[in-house]
Amino acid sequence: MSRKSPITNLLFFLLIFLFAFSAAGKSRSHHPRRPCRHLVFYFHDIIYNGENAENATSAIVGAPAWGNTTILAGQNHFGDMVVFDDPITMDNNLHSPAVGRAQGFYIYDRKEIFTAWLGFSFVFNSTEHRGSLNFAGADPLMNKTRDVSVIGGTGDFFMARGIATLSTDSFEGEVYFRLRADINLYECW
Amino acid sequence: MSRKSPITNLLFFLLIFLFAFSAAGKSRSHHPRRPCRHLVFYFHDIIYNGENAENATSAIVGAPAWGNTTILAGQNHFGDMVVFDDPITMDNNLHSPAVGRAQGFYIYDRKEIFTAWLGFSFVFNSTEHRGSLNFAGADPLMNKTRDVSVIGGTGDFFMARGIATLSTDSFEGEVYFRLRADINLYECW
Amino acid sequence: MSRKSPITNLLFFLLIFLFAFSAAGKSRSHHPRRPCRHLVFYFHDIIYNGENAENATSAIVGAPAWGNTTILAGQNHFGDMVVFDDPITMDNNLHSPAVGRAQGFYIYDRKEIFTAWLGFSFVFNSTEHRGSLNFAGADPLMNKTRDVSVIGGTGDFFMARGIATLSTDSFEGEVYFRLRADINLYECW
Repeated sequence: MSRKSPITNLLFFLLIFLFAFSAAGKSRSHHPRRPCRHLVFYFHDIIYNGENAENATSAIVGAPAWGNTTILAGQNHFGDMVVFDDPITMDNNLHSPAVGRAQGFYIYDRKEIFTAWLGFSFVFNSTEHRGSLNFAGADPLMNKTRDVSVIGGTGDFFMARGIATLSTDSFEGEVYFRLRADINLYECW
Repeated sequence: MSRKSPITNLLFFLLIFLFAFSAAGKSRSHHPRRPCRHLVFYFHDIIYNGENAENATSAIVGAPAWGNTTILAGQNHFGDMVVFDDPITMDNNLHSPAVGRAQGFYIYDRKEIFTAWLGFSFVFNSTEHRGSLNFAGADPLMNKTRDVSVIGGTGDFFMARGIATLSTDSFEGEVYFRLRADINLYECW
Repeated sequence: MSRKSPITNLLFFLLIFLFAFSAAGKSRSHHPRRPCRHLVFYFHDIIYNGENAENATSAIVGAPAWGNTTILAGQNHFGDMVVFDDPITMDNNLHSPAVGRAQGFYIYDRKEIFTAWLGFSFVFNSTEHRGSLNFAGADPLMNKTRDVSVIGGTGDFFMARGIATLSTDSFEGEVYFRLRADINLYECW
């Protein structure tokens, strides 16, 4: 009996190891909701209104029959499609150095309230970040926060997936918007 | 010999356990095609045609040089871009209570036949579902069914991925369309 | 001592096996960057310019206030939205048999340089491939290569994810573009 005990102990150790490993395997398939990467950025949208061609970072390029491409349409801008190329900054100052560009479009898609559909990318080409993050989703912009999907990434963000929580950090009339993007990646490669 | 057998048995048990676990690991990487969640919804699209402003849930906002934003263009509407905010219902009745909104856009993208490209979200804010599902893909709308990708989700549909099979359940002229969406999620968190 | 050695050896073997397996488990979560599928295609874009209606495979459908839908706008086409239905070929010859259609849109989204945002699908319906691949991302088209995300797939490409590296293989003025797509899938089902 006493002669077998070291081996029995080893087997016990092995079994514990196995069960621990098995549990780890299960937790992978249950996808714990801890982000593998967290990033915060601000981006700044200045819509062209016929008078601000020099500063504008976005422009209306599609409008419904009752609208035009210079002024956002009535009925909560329903049908207006806006293309943007906005500077991305690390803090909430429009004049901070841009670390990348937020490029894509949004479409106001409801008559009753302000809400939009977003398709865009963060494009980075700095010492800190190189590559892109791609986003898509609904943006009910009167809500304090709204979640859109990170649908992919390239370069430093190769194959990323996650959620970006957007919030309107500041705005001036219907010309300037500053958005804060809290990005949580749940799939990192 | 006989003295070693209980330990040998234990080792056998361990080996079998290991191989079983190893097989389970492999099946995870083989991604079985059983959906982890199945949902069926209907959504209802009423295109603005210059006369139905009150009921319309969508509008043409982009058109090619040979078209306009009031009437769908010739050549199978090639180039027409439509923005929509359609009610989602649980059954095929337009007047059933809406459980959410289908919001986004489609673009007719072929001269020879009706086919479109879709980017949209299902936005839920009811007792049953809260959150959103995001979709993208080609919609060859003359086919009985067509598959688009579920590219992400938020809230109750956190990080979802899958396939939505769309079918035209009913239509009236070129104004009313009812689509059935059979959603199968293969990645659930 | 010598009597225990065969069992000790077996235990050693088991431990080595366990660590090897454990390492394999970890590499799954580290996601090795070896593609599970590699595909190369070419697609051909001929933009409508008011005179080439018969050959054109794409058309401007959205334009900023300072542009129109017949000629690409100034300021690096900022704000122009183009819808396309381009033939896909296996080699770089426009007249090779099409194995599918590249369908979707791009939006020029920067005033200072040529860059665009892409949302599109490859739609296959041939003996070789059946199904679709969906793409989204930024296309800084003056770069030799640029990566966009494969955000999903259907049919033969069920649930695919990956990266498509685009390069401009050839162009003629502002009317004809030939793009090469090097597709690497990293998630295959």
